[in-house]
Amino acid sequence: MREISVGIIGAGRIGKLHAENIRRFEGVRIKAVSDIYVDAIRTWAKDIGIQDVTDDYQDILSDSEIEAILICAPTDLHTQIIEEAAQVGKHVFCEKPVSMELEKTCRAVDTAQANGICLQIGFNRRFDHNFKRLRRAVTEGALGQSHILKITSRDPHPPSADYIKTSGGIFLDMAIHDFDLARYIVGGEVEEVYAQGEVLIDDTFREVGDVDTAVTVLKFDNGAIGVIDNSRKAVYGYDQRVEVFGSQGCMVVDNDYQNTAQFWTEGGVYRDAPKSFFLDRYHEAYTEEVKSFIECIRNGKLPLVTGHDGFQAECIAHAAMRSFKEKRPIKVRDVYEGIGGETWNCSR
Amino acid sequence: MREISVGIIGAGRIGKLHAENIRRFEGVRIKAVSDIYVDAIRTWAKDIGIQDVTDDYQDILSDSEIEAILICAPTDLHTQIIEEAAQVGKHVFCEKPVSMELEKTCRAVDTAQANGICLQIGFNRRFDHNFKRLRRAVTEGALGQSHILKITSRDPHPPSADYIKTSGGIFLDMAIHDFDLARYIVGGEVEEVYAQGEVLIDDTFREVGDVDTAVTVLKFDNGAIGVIDNSRKAVYGYDQRVEVFGSQGCMVVDNDYQNTAQFWTEGGVYRDAPKSFFLDRYHEAYTEEVKSFIECIRNGKLPLVTGHDGFQAECIAHAAMRSFKEKRPIKVRDVYEGIGGETWNCSR
Amino acid sequence: MREISVGIIGAGRIGKLHAENIRRFEGVRIKAVSDIYVDAIRTWAKDIGIQDVTDDYQDILSDSEIEAILICAPTDLHTQIIEEAAQVGKHVFCEKPVSMELEKTCRAVDTAQANGICLQIGFNRRFDHNFKRLRRAVTEGALGQSHILKITSRDPHPPSADYIKTSGGIFLDMAIHDFDLARYIVGGEVEEVYAQGEVLIDDTFREVGDVDTAVTVLKFDNGAIGVIDNSRKAVYGYDQRVEVFGSQGCMVVDNDYQNTAQFWTEGGVYRDAPKSFFLDRYHEAYTEEVKSFIECIRNGKLPLVTGHDGFQAECIAHAAMRSFKEKRPIKVRDVYEGIGGETWNCSR
Amino acid sequence: MREISVGIIGAGRIGKLHAENIRRFEGVRIKAVSDIYVDAIRTWAKDIGIQDVTDDYQDILSDSEIEAILICAPTDLHTQIIEEAAQVGKHVFCEKPVSMELEKTCRAVDTAQANGICLQIGFNRRFDHNFKRLRRAVTEGALGQSHILKITSRDPHPPSADYIKTSGGIFLDMAIHDFDLARYIVGGEVEEVYAQGEVLIDDTFREVGDVDTAVTVLKFDNGAIGVIDNSRKAVYGYDQRVEVFGSQGCMVVDNDYQNTAQFWTEGGVYRDAPKSFFLDRYHEAYTEEVKSFIECIRNGKLPLVTGHDGFQAECIAHAAMRSFKEKRPIKVRDVYEGIGGETWNCSR
Repeated sequence: MREISVGIIGAGRIGKLHAENIRRFEGVRIKAVSDIYVDAIRTWAKDIGIQDVTDDYQDILSDSEIEAILICAPTDLHTQIIEEAAQVGKHVFCEKPVSMELEKTCRAVDTAQANGICLQIGFNRRFDHNFKRLRRAVTEGALGQSHILKITSRDPHPPSADYIKTSGGIFLDMAIHDFDLARYIVGGEVEEVYAQGEVLIDDTFREVGDVDTAVTVLKFDNGAIGVIDNSRKAVYGYDQRVEVFGSQGCMVVDNDYQNTAQFWTEGGVYRDAPKSFFLDRYHEAYTEEVKSFIECIRNGKLPLVTGHDGFQAECIAHAAMRSFKEKRPIKVRDVYEGIGGETWNCSR
Repeated sequence: MREISVGIIGAGRIGKLHAENIRRFEGVRIKAVSDIYVDAIRTWAKDIGIQDVTDDYQDILSDSEIEAILICAPTDLHTQIIEEAAQVGKHVFCEKPVSMELEKTCRAVDTAQANGICLQIGFNRRFDHNFKRLRRAVTEGALGQSHILKITSRDPHPPSADYIKTSGGIFLDMAIHDFDLARYIVGGEVEEVYAQGEVLIDDTFREVGDVDTAVTVLKFDNGAIGVIDNSRKAVYGYDQRVEVFGSQGCMVVDNDYQNTAQFWTEGGVYRDAPKSFFLDRYHEAYTEEVKSFIECIRNGKLPLVTGHDGFQAECIAHAAMRSFKEKRPIKVRDVYEGIGGETWNCSR
Repeated sequence: MREISVGIIGAGRIGKLHAENIRRFEGVRIKAVSDIYVDAIRTWAKDIGIQDVTDDYQDILSDSEIEAILICAPTDLHTQIIEEAAQVGKHVFCEKPVSMELEKTCRAVDTAQANGICLQIGFNRRFDHNFKRLRRAVTEGALGQSHILKITSRDPHPPSADYIKTSGGIFLDMAIHDFDLARYIVGGEVEEVYAQGEVLIDDTFREVGDVDTAVTVLKFDNGAIGVIDNSRKAVYGYDQRVEVFGSQGCMVVDNDYQNTAQFWTEGGVYRDAPKSFFLDRYHEAYTEEVKSFIECIRNGKLPLVTGHDGFQAECIAHAAMRSFKEKRPIKVRDVYEGIGGETWNCSR
Repeated sequence: MREISVGIIGAGRIGKLHAENIRRFEGVRIKAVSDIYVDAIRTWAKDIGIQDVTDDYQDILSDSEIEAILICAPTDLHTQIIEEAAQVGKHVFCEKPVSMELEKTCRAVDTAQANGICLQIGFNRRFDHNFKRLRRAVTEGALGQSHILKITSRDPHPPSADYIKTSGGIFLDMAIHDFDLARYIVGGEVEEVYAQGEVLIDDTFREVGDVDTAVTVLKFDNGAIGVIDNSRKAVYGYDQRVEVFGSQGCMVVDNDYQNTAQFWTEGGVYRDAPKSFFLDRYHEAYTEEVKSFIECIRNGKLPLVTGHDGFQAECIAHAAMRSFKEKRPIKVRDVYEGIGGETWNCSR
């Protein structure tokens, strides 16, 4: 097996997570890592055997041994790095969202495609064992025609006030995962979006024009109707459930639990809470998505989550934002036609 | 215990069901039953000990021994009978919906109130053991402030084409149960409705301007957002689930099953389907609602489901219909103000 | 449908329960009831429409209109009444156990058979929806050959000290239900019994030579091994679970719950306890067993629980008692051969 | 963190498994591996970075850099290697059982203790997340006093005929895991054992005097009664459930599943089978047990599974074998007193 050298741009929580996973893969070497706080990561990088540490990601892009990069830098740098990497022919794994602006995302994805690199977006949930099982049921036709999709996606606690201010809002920051999952599982495109939201948890959201509780209705081109409910704070933990109701049956995917113990007491039956947050719940999915990225590079295949998928999810998020503000359903076409994005309605 | 004599108007499926239940109550006598197909019910009525059988419901209204009636006649007769009964001081249990037209419902409920009779509407689900448990959690504050309400309500198979044509549509015929349950469980009023629908099961629905699959979003006056999904055909049976997500936790109410057996086989784990349809699933609730009606009469109390509740649920249904047709959210106030119904915003 | 008149001998808790159920059956009349505390039951009997009330059960046996009796009197009167009823040709439903002494049981069952009456023993669990489902899986061959049977049977709280003293012990009083269920579900005869017991809950059991916690191993003639665990006190309520493991799969029957609500809180997931005790858990089974008895009389069929079944369960209970005392496995044959009972090894 | 060098003796399935896990630990190096089929493992060993490969385990014992060894060789070599390793002061992780003969096990454990090495036995289930949760409930007193312990332990398919012939029998080969788990979870010693077995799956077992289906009853010194049921073939997969019933409640630990998807179809509700076999089910436990072993070495602590624990589990297994053959309950004391093992009744 040919060894593939990768570089990681940005070594915050998610960058480190990917590094810890990749070092266990056979046939992959993390050659270099960059971070603006370079001193803070030197010991960590050395301990896990990363050769080069730099504060300038250009060092990674110019390293001819490196075939692929993972972009774990702040969102506002994503498209610039994608374009630069594409131009030097390096494959790119980029965390979601590609950007806050559809035009930028569109151009970056375009550049990647024009340069023939493999571009995978970090929608890790597609690699989760529960959602993969559901996707398989849909694609195998076990459920018949999909009629109703339901996604429950709630975080255990809201992010910090600082994060909230620059997050891009609940639809682009949080629900975007659900928009991608919706498209992936139903296997159709979203035509229209209606979103409703409230501030019920933390007034910081209101101050920045955001909401902490939202319900979004999606109309798919194959007739299915999708419903997503989001909350920034579920006291019982991370809540990630999906259900597809079709003409031949319904598949319901529940949360994962820490253990299977049921405790029967005088006061009733008790069990421990679900797995607590995304690092725990999607531990396996984070590993699988990068493993899959490496395999796509090795075998010259299209990734499971393309730049096109990243763009589509962002279109839906922007439509949801506009729907919430204008208090009416919004056609996704109206969003991407607005940026000349019609050509993006290509098949993957 | 004072014996109460009741009359039943209409002895179709639901009229017979109520009769079978009532005959087991202590202190209640079914004195008379009326049906236009009087010959078809004579044997049945005699077998269960009903004294008088008639084809004219006026015989029941003029029977001075009878204190209360159950209206199980076709919907288009409901308001007329309610008003006549109210005028002769008989208490009324009326199946849902009160009528297809808000003005008629409003006038009938008004007449009932003006004459001081007890008027209970047949929203049986309020008496179900699962939903009562959920309601208790909300009222006791166990869930904190309600943020999101989710109702899944799917029938095992669509009604006959004849029924579909006169049903009043999915919102007024089927989802109306869910609209009432939503108000009951959340304990707030619905301000705005957004509904989306599709014909995915049976073209008969399309021919009469109806849909067989619908998703409705409700905005409550206390900030909560409700989502209801309806289907006319769930191949696995009757699907009746409710979930309330609040600031202190989430309560999820699942379907009832025929038995608890799990069968572990070479091909996976299997269990029998949920209880199959409303007569089975809500068997107990049908008994409890009439028992509660009798107790309200006996003790001079307000019923758990008032005429006001019936009117409100119909308002939401009409708002949903209009939202679906006009493709935009509709304020419930706009619906009942249209018929001068504002005065109905009274507390129960 | 021909009306059948029945008499009830003994109107304690279980006698009253049967009466309340029977009064709802079509085609059955409770003509008379007897109880030594006759004054205490007069009002109750009148309220539910029982014509004759007496303190002498002979009045019931000599009433030529009465076709069948239910024996709900104390255990030590069972066999005497069975024999007298058999001699006057009245069908008998008798609560379990038939008696505390195998010889007596044997003679009573013999007399019933010789006089051609229908004799049903009150092993109500055979009529429970969960256990019927499991029995069906076994008889249909869905599980293949039965290898292991597991029964968990625990009461919510121990009986009174007075009851304990005359109960006959955990095996004859409590586990006897499980012994019958074991035979019924596996569809084979028990050849050997090993029982172990402890006093862990209440010293009263020790004082009378009884135990409150027991595990019994059954060896069936078809090779299956059965395990039953009993406790007199499960703080979480009535625990009634059964599992059959066979060559083609395993079926596990769980407890019934009061509702399906799951409550997800900061401290974990909670649900209400199982149904609390036998009147609640087996409510339906109590109705079904007497309904079945009446049908057997009407159609001249063998009851689902014959006198032979009652005798076999008692044999197993006696074997368990002896095993516990002698600290070694005991062959059931050794128990009934000891009383000349070998002829009882007949098929039902 | 000081680096610890280990050697692995025996590179069959389990030896390789441990190696794959250990190579991911920080601060641990696999210096050498030995196997009699040395050529078959050279490539594998090189790929995962093991420096030395030998066909003679003495090379490992004489390597002064190596601090600890894992014995994954055939059972009949275990005690010899333990003793030799103890004499050269190397810590030992040894797969279960220590040996087929109590005397040998006793001597090996004795030698280990006399030489002050850390000896851990491979009862991996103690490190499983489900059983750890149950153990915690017991030790924290959440269940009160333990009354009944139930273990279900069934393999998905019987081993090969060759394996069966030398396995030592179901009690010493398979149930020994459950005997150890029973002691661990209840936190008491087993005083008496009663075992019953049948050949219901494969006649090979009968030919070698073994059984494929067994039920074992354990009497603990703290009054608790344990029941273990074993089968060599569960068509639905690996079945590993445990339940403790105590004076304050009952905790039930179910199997782990591959995913949480429920599929509701016309024919009922379906879900995928539990995790399929021990490598899958106990994947995490295998990692944790060796991680714990390394930590004990590093910190000079007693391992969670001592040589004493290994000896006790074997005593119970031998008692079960004898009980099965002699058809009577056997005291564990009678087994180990037979070999002068009384001194082993020491606390850990």
